[in-house]
Amino acid sequence: MKILLTNDDGIYAPGLRALRKELQSFGDVIVVAPAVEQSAAGHSVTLLHPLVVAEVFDESNQFLGWAVEGRPADCVKLALLELLPDPPDLIVSGMNHGSNAGINVLYSGTVAAAVEGAFFRKTAIAISLASKKAKPSEFAEASKFAVKVIRQIVDTQPQAGMLYNLNLPAPELGEIKGVKILPQNVAPYTENFHRRTDPRGRVYFWMGNDYGCPDPHPGTDESALSEGYLVITPLQFDLTNRVELQRLKQHFE
Amino acid sequence: MKILLTNDDGIYAPGLRALRKELQSFGDVIVVAPAVEQSAAGHSVTLLHPLVVAEVFDESNQFLGWAVEGRPADCVKLALLELLPDPPDLIVSGMNHGSNAGINVLYSGTVAAAVEGAFFRKTAIAISLASKKAKPSEFAEASKFAVKVIRQIVDTQPQAGMLYNLNLPAPELGEIKGVKILPQNVAPYTENFHRRTDPRGRVYFWMGNDYGCPDPHPGTDESALSEGYLVITPLQFDLTNRVELQRLKQHFE
Repeated sequence: MKILLTNDDGIYAPGLRALRKELQSFGDVIVVAPAVEQSAAGHSVTLLHPLVVAEVFDESNQFLGWAVEGRPADCVKLALLELLPDPPDLIVSGMNHGSNAGINVLYSGTVAAAVEGAFFRKTAIAISLASKKAKPSEFAEASKFAVKVIRQIVDTQPQAGMLYNLNLPAPELGEIKGVKILPQNVAPYTENFHRRTDPRGRVYFWMGNDYGCPDPHPGTDESALSEGYLVITPLQFDLTNRVELQRLKQHFE
Repeated sequence: MKILLTNDDGIYAPGLRALRKELQSFGDVIVVAPAVEQSAAGHSVTLLHPLVVAEVFDESNQFLGWAVEGRPADCVKLALLELLPDPPDLIVSGMNHGSNAGINVLYSGTVAAAVEGAFFRKTAIAISLASKKAKPSEFAEASKFAVKVIRQIVDTQPQAGMLYNLNLPAPELGEIKGVKILPQNVAPYTENFHRRTDPRGRVYFWMGNDYGCPDPHPGTDESALSEGYLVITPLQFDLTNRVELQRLKQHFE
């Protein structure tokens, strides 16, 4: 099994390190990841700037992969088109510090990297831990569980290009209650900006840190995650709203 | 009709200026747009940096709106949560220079701004002109056509939060052949990187400009656009792949 590992927290993030260690029992892992943190990068890509690339070695002086001065999706493109000696069988993105459920899926660089892999018709899995303050030991525990689930998914022999979003519950909820396969929550989030004035008198806004989804729809990634389950959500990149397409067509004919 | 206008090419882009002019016949237009170009920003948002905001006036010294030192999606959030005196009835994003069809929809800051509007349950329309070198007069022509179509869509009284992606054909294809309502193309793109060495000997890659979709699926945005039609694609932000969800569930039970 040839595995490409990437993330959006940067190549030195503890979540990536923990996941790499567990994935090595499952296959050959090569990392191509952003040189620095790219949180909330969404599916941005770099067209107007060069992508500087550097080889990186781990603490045992083993080849880890490449650090890219770009976005998570840039990393996957570069890995598949330029860097990897052989095409990977599987692309894994994570483990992100913080959940990527509900509409946050669309802001997520972690998920975008997996979507980019699916563009190339590879099996791609995004993995996130629903904690902003997880310790390395908690990433290690979560990675053990996550890699078991990755193996289970791969064992079902998904079609080429299938795309999965995995979220693991916050460690403080205790032992993981089990695995649920559920749709993405689409309920609105609450969020706010802090309005401030800079030392030169200019107004600026800064996104507050107390956003959340106060009322997630039951039976979705967001709700099951808060109940302590690992949630798998299969995703697609065809965004067409076919119901609305039919409605609108009737009006335009 | 209160209209919020945004884009990803920046508040001084000719595509935005042309669209604003036409939209003013349809309602009160306030612009909240990035201070500088944000192409391929995807649905990135700014969490780790402040968003400096400045009032902007047009060439007749009329209030145009606010320039935001952030991403297209940041602009929509800020507009709805902080800047606009009243909630808008409609959010329009564009007119982008360059098409946003097929899987490019996922890289597009123009589309992401509209998706952000749909998160707030507003009717939101992204508009792109399939030309990287359109002249201001071509944006003006295209805007006339686009605003007619926007009016038609609004007249159908779509449900709150409906989201549309409009692509106008390249001006060099001649007069627009008509309007088609079609799904997003999901066929793969070809793309490549230029590999170079910087003056300090470091390797870098730069995304080539000759990407494209050599074989778009018939009956999609991409194919009809190349045939000279304006294409409307209703979009959604629930990315759940429900077919794969059912398949995977059977394996996990």
